[in-house]
Amino acid sequence: MSILHFEDFTVGRVFPCGPYTVSKDEIFEFAREFDPQPHHLDEEAASKSMLKGLSASGWHVCAIAMRMIADDILNKAASRGGVGTHDVRWIKPVRPGDTLRLEVEVSETSEPRSKPEFGFVTIQIRMFNAHEQVAQLSMIPIIAKRGSA
Amino acid sequence: MSILHFEDFTVGRVFPCGPYTVSKDEIFEFAREFDPQPHHLDEEAASKSMLKGLSASGWHVCAIAMRMIADDILNKAASRGGVGTHDVRWIKPVRPGDTLRLEVEVSETSEPRSKPEFGFVTIQIRMFNAHEQVAQLSMIPIIAKRGSA
Repeated sequence: MSILHFEDFTVGRVFPCGPYTVSKDEIFEFAREFDPQPHHLDEEAASKSMLKGLSASGWHVCAIAMRMIADDILNKAASRGGVGTHDVRWIKPVRPGDTLRLEVEVSETSEPRSKPEFGFVTIQIRMFNAHEQVAQLSMIPIIAKRGSA
Repeated sequence: MSILHFEDFTVGRVFPCGPYTVSKDEIFEFAREFDPQPHHLDEEAASKSMLKGLSASGWHVCAIAMRMIADDILNKAASRGGVGTHDVRWIKPVRPGDTLRLEVEVSETSEPRSKPEFGFVTIQIRMFNAHEQVAQLSMIPIIAKRGSA
């Protein structure tokens, strides 16, 4: 397998990722550990909430995106970590049983002058269920240049 | 216990949250499930990484912030969900054994004209270990107004 380096992340390139199917047990498990609010933990409370039914925590949605990006991009790349995100939007609820996929588009790259061996790659991540977009987020992985590592 | 409503989230108000101590097992468990990159999964690979040692996934750090905010603010408030974030910065690594706490400051509020029963509260979240700030993020919870629910 040829490893992806910074030079391979050209602006406009799109990487498909997934699929990933979310179970109800996983939604409860994440919520119990990290987001114990009634609308993520209890089906009856959830049915009365603004989202009108059980949905995954927004941070669970981000973690699921991370898993698909790790499997399908970063673990095939000379990845050195990440610095954060400028934007996360939870557009539609993620429901038990949803099968999710991503379109990950390179929107910008930059090369720090002080660290010539790697670059920053800004990616725009669009998450879809079978019917529509459910989330939008960005990430900025740090990727080594070819021949640097 | 008196429930916090939108009117209680005045700009400039600061809510302390935490503490939360992160175990090594928890770092491995989150990484295995959501961020299976060598620098979060393997102590030897981590020691050779840019962060020079095992650290929690950035999305795990966000999830830990969510847990403290759910326990100490949102589950004491008329919370109706959230819309996303404009900003997440992972400033310093979160290490096994770190005890974390938050300062959560209300930076902005807004009232959608179409939904008079609730408002949006933008909060700036600063996460600290025992020595320094390790992360900065924002969130925008939706909080019901007094008398609306």
